Parts: sequence; C-alpha cells; structure tokens
Amino acid sequence: MTFDVHAFRDLDPGQRILMGPGPSDVHPRVLQALASPCIGHLDPTFLSIMDETQQLLRFLFQTEHPLTIPVSGTGSAGMEACFVNLVEPGDEVAVCVNGVFGTRMADIVNRLGGKLIRVDAEWGRAVDPDAVRKAVQDRNPKILAVVHAETSTGACTPLEDLSRIAKDCGALFLVDMVTSLAGMDVALDRMGVDAAYSGTQKCISCPPGLSPVSFSSAAMEALKHREGPVVSWYLDMSMVSSYWGAERKYHHTAPVNMIYALREALRLIAEEGLEARFERHRRNHRALVAGLEAMGFSMLVPENERLPMLNTVRIPDGADDVKVRKALLSDYGIEIGGGLGDLAGKVWRVGLMGHASCRKNVVLFLSALEGILRAQGVQVKPDAIEAAAAVYAQG
Amino acid sequence: MTFDVHAFRDLDPGQRILMGPGPSDVHPRVLQALASPCIGHLDPTFLSIMDETQQLLRFLFQTEHPLTIPVSGTGSAGMEACFVNLVEPGDEVAVCVNGVFGTRMADIVNRLGGKLIRVDAEWGRAVDPDAVRKAVQDRNPKILAVVHAETSTGACTPLEDLSRIAKDCGALFLVDMVTSLAGMDVALDRMGVDAAYSGTQKCISCPPGLSPVSFSSAAMEALKHREGPVVSWYLDMSMVSSYWGAERKYHHTAPVNMIYALREALRLIAEEGLEARFERHRRNHRALVAGLEAMGFSMLVPENERLPMLNTVRIPDGADDVKVRKALLSDYGIEIGGGLGDLAGKVWRVGLMGHASCRKNVVLFLSALEGILRAQGVQVKPDAIEAAAAVYAQG
Repeated sequence: MTFDVHAFRDLDPGQRILMGPGPSDVHPRVLQALASPCIGHLDPTFLSIMDETQQLLRFLFQTEHPLTIPVSGTGSAGMEACFVNLVEPGDEVAVCVNGVFGTRMADIVNRLGGKLIRVDAEWGRAVDPDAVRKAVQDRNPKILAVVHAETSTGACTPLEDLSRIAKDCGALFLVDMVTSLAGMDVALDRMGVDAAYSGTQKCISCPPGLSPVSFSSAAMEALKHREGPVVSWYLDMSMVSSYWGAERKYHHTAPVNMIYALREALRLIAEEGLEARFERHRRNHRALVAGLEAMGFSMLVPENERLPMLNTVRIPDGADDVKVRKALLSDYGIEIGGGLGDLAGKVWRVGLMGHASCRKNVVLFLSALEGILRAQGVQVKPDAIEAAAAVYAQG
Repeated sequence: MTFDVHAFRDLDPGQRILMGPGPSDVHPRVLQALASPCIGHLDPTFLSIMDETQQLLRFLFQTEHPLTIPVSGTGSAGMEACFVNLVEPGDEVAVCVNGVFGTRMADIVNRLGGKLIRVDAEWGRAVDPDAVRKAVQDRNPKILAVVHAETSTGACTPLEDLSRIAKDCGALFLVDMVTSLAGMDVALDRMGVDAAYSGTQKCISCPPGLSPVSFSSAAMEALKHREGPVVSWYLDMSMVSSYWGAERKYHHTAPVNMIYALREALRLIAEEGLEARFERHRRNHRALVAGLEAMGFSMLVPENERLPMLNTVRIPDGADDVKVRKALLSDYGIEIGGGLGDLAGKVWRVGLMGHASCRKNVVLFLSALEGILRAQGVQVKPDAIEAAAAVYAQG
C-alpha cells in the first residue's frame, strides 16, 4: 500500500474560546492530568483514582446514591445507559419533549420497545407540569423523563414539580443533566431524582468522552427486578457497578486518562465550591444578556426560564448566521453554536460553561459581535459593554 | 454538605512499565497530543482531524471500507457496535469460543435475541476450522464471528480458512481484533473481513477509550436492509457514519482529545511502517519466549498458535501468583496480567504491545522475574538473558 505519512502534519488544533453548546474551555490543570502516564486499569493506584472520582461525583450531584460513576462514553451514552437499564419492552415511559434532546429520549424509548407517553412543549419554553400531570393520569408509567437544561433551546425546566408527579404515579424520575450539572443546582437527593446523566464537556469543563451517571436505590432495585437481560452488554449497570464497586469485577477497560482529567476537573469544582460556581454562572449570564439586550437583540427564552450556561439569542434582522459565526471563529477564535432543528438560522447559542464562564469572555464576545455585525452592515445599538459592566458592578 | 477537598491530592499515577494484557505504554508524543487544547467537534480544524484519523485507520486495517472510524467507547463498545447493528432477533449467529472474549460475543448475541450457534474450542488453542464448518453445515448463519487474538489465553486463530467458510455459507465475517491490530497482519480486504473492531490501548499504544471499527460494503448493506431499528441509538452505525462522513450530520460529541491522541498514535505507526512493526513484535516475542523457556517454564499455547503481543506462560511450581506480580509492580513498576476464568492462578499474561514491545522491556522483565522467583525460593534455571540475546543476535 502506498501511503504518504508525511501528508499528516504535527497536530495543531490552535486555541479557541469555546462559547458554543459544548465542549467548553478546558483548564490547563485538566489537560495536564489528561497527559499523565497511562497506568493499568487494575493498578492499585488507579483503583484509588476511581474511588476518588466517585466521591467527587457524589459531591457534585449532591447525592448519596451508591452507583455514581462516569460511563465510558459521551453524554449520549449516559442517556442510553439510563434508558436501556430501566426500560423493558412494553413498559410505559413518559418523556417530556421541548427540544432536540427530548426527541432523542423518545427515539431511544421506541427502540427499546417501550410504550411512549410523549408530552410535547413549545421549543424554547420550560415543560408545563400540568400538561405532564394530565398526560400520565390513569396511566402507569415506569419512568418520567425530562431534560433539565435543553441545550438546543436554552430553556430550563424546574425539577421539583415533575419529581412530585413522578412520585405520585409511582414512576422513576429520570433527568438529563448534560448541560446543567456543575453550572446550576442539581441536588439529586433533595430533588428526588432516580436516574441522571451528564457529559464532561459542558460545565465540568473536561474534554468530551465520559458521561457521569447516578442511579438511586429505587433505580437499582428496578434494574435488579427486570424480567429480561439488559440488551446492552457495554452499558449493563449491574456489571458496570460491580466493576466500579468493591468487587472490582473486570468488565471493560476504563478510559484511564479521561478519568484522570475528570478527577482533576471535579477537584477544581470542589475547590471553587458549588454555590460560588453557580453564582459565577448566573452573574456572567446576566451580564451577557444585558449586553445583548442593550444591542437591541432579544432572547428566545422568557427571563425566568433561561439557563445560565446556554444563551439563545434571536439572530438580528439583516445578519447572516453563518457569516457572523465564521467571522467570530476566524477573527477572534470564538466558537458559538447555531440553532438546531426548527431553530436553525433563527438563533445563536452562546455558551458560558464552566471554565469559559468568565467576565473576559463575556466582554470580548460582546465587543467582537458588535464589530462584526457593524462591519457586515447590521444596525446595532451601542452601550453593550456598559450594560454588561453594570451587572458586574452590582457585585 | 461538608466535603474536604484537600483530601484529594495532586494526581500522581507514577510511571509503570505496562506489560499486561493492556493498556500498554503510551509514547510521549501521544500524551502530548492528548493534552492539546480542546476545540469544538464541528470546528473545521477538527473535521480535518477526523478525516485524517479515518485515512490512518484505513491504512492500519489495510482496507478500503468506507466506514472505518473510532467508536466513542472502549473495545467492548466496538464489539457491541458490530453485533447490535448486524444482528436482529431470530438471526442465526455462529460464534467461535476459545476464551473469555468469545464468551462475551455469545452473551451479546443472546441479549440481542439472536440464535446462537456456539462453536467451542479448547482455551489456549486456535479455533479448528473443521469444527466450524461442521457447526454451520445445514444452517444459515447471518454472521460468523471469531476472536483473532484471544487476550485471555494468548492464542491466535488464523483468519483465512474461517473467512472462506463464512463466504461459503453466505455469512458476514466478524472479527475481534482488539489485541491483534497494529501488532500483526490484519488486512481486512485481503482477508475478507466484513466487520472488525479493536481497542486503542493494546498495540496502537494510545490510552483506552476508543474502539476502531470497520464495516465492509456488505456489512453496510445488511445494516441498510434491517427489518427493525438498531436497538442502540449511541452505536447506530447508520447515524454514526453520517456524522463521520461528508454529511457531518450531528450525532454525538466526538471525544475530541482522545481522537487527537489516536491520530498521533496512528501517525507513529505509519512512520514505523506496518511490516517493520509486525517484525518488531515477532522478534521481541521470540526473545521473551526463549528467555522464559531457558528458565525452565512452559508456554500455554503451542508454538505455531502463539500471539506475538500476548504471551501466556504457565506459573512455575512453587511460585505464588499474586506475590510475584506484586513484587514486579512494587520493585520494578512492571505490570503483567494474571489468568482469567479457568486460567486464574495457572498462567501469567505478559504483554509486548505496541510501544512496550522492545528489547529493554524483555530483558528487564526476564531479569526481574528471575530475581523475584529466586528470592521467593523458586527453582529457576540460569541463562534466560543469554537465550533472549541469542534471538536478538539473529537480527
């Protein structure tokens, strides 16, 4: 085989400012941990690292759930892990759909042969608890599932009411926390969440590749009392929990270096403290929104339903979606996201996640956007930076 | 929640010499690539990196298969990806079982509702083609599956005869190459392999976390003509191939930094050249075996069925399995593997994989083992190092 190896140059991904829907900027300490020498997945030193990672994840999820581990795949693998372990053919599963990631949950339930109870809500809005209560009335769902932070729209659905509805109808409460975890309060035990999954590349600010997952005792009981085997061997949580638990029963080879990185990212979170971290996300979000609104733009999501870490702003009249994003990337190295599905071409998704949620990024982005829009002939009101500064001045 | 973050110290995994069944030692250039800044998974720069990674994987698999990509999970996820896409309930699937990883394939086929035709062979031996031919006679298997390199036993099953049997009965030929890829010849096209999977942490010498997978046109056709949907959303290769292909259709977020690392590991392989790499693995294997046999020990696998990258040696009389391995790890930082299943306590598994397959490791391991066994009162013949040196002297 003729093959020119010199066609493949030294890796040089450049340095971006990641303000899209994820991945987010990774702290140098996390990259350094990632590059530590690989050791065996059964090495006593690595077993300690696994234990510590579980402790740090329980801290972050605010839970005592025994099974709280990083699944060896990205956030979507975590989604699948939750459903494939808890859903058997014929089980009724209520899924709230107010964006792309809700449709994915529904897709997965169908693939598993579950009976889907689909509760649709407007994209860009929170899910209405009354609609959910009505939908599960006189039904017998095994699971009620919702996306806490819809990454496709920027809408946040509060969990308390839905948790109560799940308990009232005897269902397990399953929550997608891919984008919310580590950026806002997601206390599993207090909120009565039975199964949750997340991703490492959003507010945890670790590269993508792992999916933190947590199962309550009730979820583990449901898993134990399945009629048939879990259709996925790789994601079978009864085996995965024996691997991560005291038994150390070999299942698959853990992604050693990614777990180094996750542990370091979690340590950074613990050093900052959860409340301080959530407040940082809220403040930078408020400053960004103040700046965008001062420019005359409008947010897709009503104020009290907005996520602090993902901001969807309507693309202003006259602006060219792709041209603006390309200029941000080429002139400033700033990545933001476009709209997904029906929102394509209508909104930009501006992430302020984890390490990337900082004043520097907010101000740079507002300035860069203002300049690019003006250069492309779009009307922009002045005073964005002052409006953002006023938020920071409030302390 | 009271939580003492200072209980979690700076990451320090130490530095091991990885001579177990995987992971293997990682080259510094690969660790450096791993720690490059994370960029967006839709960034034009990252899309080029994805394309190059596919080209390099096709080179390594020696194939023109259009779908040749790293699945976003470890080797076991690759195994599952192959079966979950190609097996539907009721499909007959012939699985050769001559070790732990064959039993896993059988387990997965059962979970998917396939009709298993199980062909058992002695652990530590290659699979006998005649037994396979007999087993599939008058049957109509959709797939014939085999583990090329049984990591649990060190036995290699040649692929040519089995490939012919698969073609003769109209089955797709599915091969586990987790341990063989990049350490011995695995030319997919020449060998008529329709679906193959591997892991990054064996002879590729990249940290664990990705699973190179390749599907032939026939496998893609079978996927296209399924009656029902693929039960796994995460591993659905019709969607994954649209993500990795020209369409760039968003599926999940690729594990960006792990793909950096894989690309660099593949580049190192291409720089060395496949034949040189395979010859290096063979030579170090022969030297190791010469040394072990000179000490008076015997190999589990007959000479012409041995793997070059994984050596199973019978634990000599009087030696304490765990004590010896602990001493290797604590006194020398050398990791080797114990036996799995029925072979637990009976064999050691000594890996010479990828970057770790080198003269330095062979000689250090033989010296260390000799010293430890003597110190623990086990009879060992001298001349191991000389026997190994004689192999190297042959050039």
